[in-house]
Amino acid sequence: MTQTPYHTLDANGIRDLIAGLPDVATRLGGASAQWQVREVSDGNLNNVFLVGGPAGEVCLKQSLPHVRVDPSWKMPLDRTFFEAAWLRAVLPLVGGLTTECLFFDRDLYVLIVESLSGHTVLRTALMQGADWPGVAPRIGTFIARAAFGTSLLARPFEEVFTTRRTFAANLALTRITLDLVLDDPYRDHPRNHWHDPVLTPIVLDIRSSAATLLAVENLRRRFLSQPQALLHGDLHTGSIMSTPDDTRVIDGEFAVYGPIGFDCGMFVGNLVLHYFAMPDHAARKATLRDIGAFWNSFHEQFMGLWNANEAPPPGTLRPLAYGPAAHVAQQTFMEEILGDTIGFAAIEIIRRIIGYAHTADFDIIADRQQRAACRAGALAFAYHVLDHLNEFHTINDFLYFLDEQGQAGL
Amino acid sequence: MTQTPYHTLDANGIRDLIAGLPDVATRLGGASAQWQVREVSDGNLNNVFLVGGPAGEVCLKQSLPHVRVDPSWKMPLDRTFFEAAWLRAVLPLVGGLTTECLFFDRDLYVLIVESLSGHTVLRTALMQGADWPGVAPRIGTFIARAAFGTSLLARPFEEVFTTRRTFAANLALTRITLDLVLDDPYRDHPRNHWHDPVLTPIVLDIRSSAATLLAVENLRRRFLSQPQALLHGDLHTGSIMSTPDDTRVIDGEFAVYGPIGFDCGMFVGNLVLHYFAMPDHAARKATLRDIGAFWNSFHEQFMGLWNANEAPPPGTLRPLAYGPAAHVAQQTFMEEILGDTIGFAAIEIIRRIIGYAHTADFDIIADRQQRAACRAGALAFAYHVLDHLNEFHTINDFLYFLDEQGQAGL
Repeated sequence: MTQTPYHTLDANGIRDLIAGLPDVATRLGGASAQWQVREVSDGNLNNVFLVGGPAGEVCLKQSLPHVRVDPSWKMPLDRTFFEAAWLRAVLPLVGGLTTECLFFDRDLYVLIVESLSGHTVLRTALMQGADWPGVAPRIGTFIARAAFGTSLLARPFEEVFTTRRTFAANLALTRITLDLVLDDPYRDHPRNHWHDPVLTPIVLDIRSSAATLLAVENLRRRFLSQPQALLHGDLHTGSIMSTPDDTRVIDGEFAVYGPIGFDCGMFVGNLVLHYFAMPDHAARKATLRDIGAFWNSFHEQFMGLWNANEAPPPGTLRPLAYGPAAHVAQQTFMEEILGDTIGFAAIEIIRRIIGYAHTADFDIIADRQQRAACRAGALAFAYHVLDHLNEFHTINDFLYFLDEQGQAGL
Repeated sequence: MTQTPYHTLDANGIRDLIAGLPDVATRLGGASAQWQVREVSDGNLNNVFLVGGPAGEVCLKQSLPHVRVDPSWKMPLDRTFFEAAWLRAVLPLVGGLTTECLFFDRDLYVLIVESLSGHTVLRTALMQGADWPGVAPRIGTFIARAAFGTSLLARPFEEVFTTRRTFAANLALTRITLDLVLDDPYRDHPRNHWHDPVLTPIVLDIRSSAATLLAVENLRRRFLSQPQALLHGDLHTGSIMSTPDDTRVIDGEFAVYGPIGFDCGMFVGNLVLHYFAMPDHAARKATLRDIGAFWNSFHEQFMGLWNANEAPPPGTLRPLAYGPAAHVAQQTFMEEILGDTIGFAAIEIIRRIIGYAHTADFDIIADRQQRAACRAGALAFAYHVLDHLNEFHTINDFLYFLDEQGQAGL
């Protein structure tokens, strides 16, 4: 440990730090003067560097005392602490679907993980037209294993309560999710923005629909009051690095206990954004396939862990009832997760179109009017979903409606 | 603070401790040698003393490193810490409905509160035939104020998460609730016991009913996964001291965040136990009245706090929707609390008849066979309620069924 007071590291500071960490230095190889330090900060919050030597590369992330893209928005430094804690909690559960935590320093709030420089951010890959059918099911597996393994189904409640306590301190980033995702878009707030006037009537409809606002209220309550499992908390397509064959979930700094469908919904919502941004029949079919494959993989893996007969899970919530009755209870639980998934997906779509933090998906559409029409299609889709949330009973209900809306917009 | 290593205090130790606490000593008056120390330990867990001087009296409670009534059952000492923390959290919300925390010492795990020696334990008063119509509505008020004021409806989520963290460490007593209340009675476990063979067929029915076991599973999951508000956690009629005009909730050492209906259900369940233990028409009518008055008072107070227009509650879960839609959301929330109330009431009845910790209610029935029949009536009632939980939509559905079953047994 360095015991150095907090300061923002530059390239030389990074070299000096790693030179004092034999395990990390060995990964890089050679002498510290040879190491290449390359800033690759991309998210809104942190400084991120890739550090390469003759033998290998690592990724270094440092919290700043403010939002990276807006220094006037002050932030506590502890977010890399929660990311490190999240990595340590989920890595043993998900194996190769995230990165190893190589080092964390509580004074500098520096986290060092494996480098994934051979991987591409999934959002970027999708925008470049990549069709990697393995990715979505891998994310289904990731969420199933991380969620099941941190839930009361797999762990004695004493362990779950203790882990909940750790992440219930992640207040600054949970506040961001509450405000930016679950609140601002439904009010008049200076952080909201959208350029296309064609969106305005849909925004006004959303804000004046009692059914929609009640659905949002209910999802906000569930986000804060259903600590089913340790969530990633920000699982959009920018938090995933992938090749066709290897997929890693990164950036777990928003980790908090919450409803499992929150993570599922973030991922599905971002696939839907991509769907509406690709005005091409084949690409849209591939996205429908991916959403279905994601959910089926999640469902199958989660149920498989729950029903593992050889070594039944030692969680506090082991069943009292067996046979068909137990099956009904499991089905009810999975339907609850699906309802959350669909609801949070709609919430994610709305905030990415009219809230503070947009995504790049629609930037590939050169024509301004077409871009606006695609955004409007996604926004209207999400509005309808929230307004009729109780009518979606299966993932196919959701996919059928998406396909219908998507075809209507082409 | 004493900084004395933990040891069990006797009368002289108590006098020496209080002599060093000017505020408490002033309440007692006179010199420490004059103070009367009287052991009144009654619950299963702690040593309790009343300490009296010429000017007044206080109540001192000390955690033991084991269950008081079973020294072989080891326990951590921290339970008086959680009781003190609970008192500090709820006293400002409930005013005169609990006792003031006068002193807490983290080394000795000693808690000193106001003495209530003029009050009677509610269970004892009920067994002696007291008919105090003011008590049940006061408990409704108590739960409404404590629950609302510690919930996301009244507090920013940052405060709620921080308080949740404190009480999520109350592992030893939460484990007791889980095992003794929500688990053992539904399995063959050496801690269970009942003397009357007439109960055995009902126990076997309970344990082989899939609907009942699923209801229990669901309530157990809700107890651990619906942190709506800070619960008392053990709100039976032995945790209430009362006169006809003044009622205090004590013994908050089981405090934990959970579903609001858990506290309501514990109280209602104990009134139902009293109902079946009083084979007298007038007494039973009074208990029906008390359960109805309790729920109506809880409901009215909770809604009143929620809809306080002059100073709307500053909680994170302030509504997005207004008008009739907001009313629907509130109604759904209250129905959820009622469902939990009825479910946990049934669970409490069952565990008090066949589990580890019975209550004295039925001891007033001299005739052994009649006593067994009354217990069987209560147990069969609770079994039916759990088995048909979805059929109870209002408190009157519950009271009507209770009246019907009670009359059938007379």
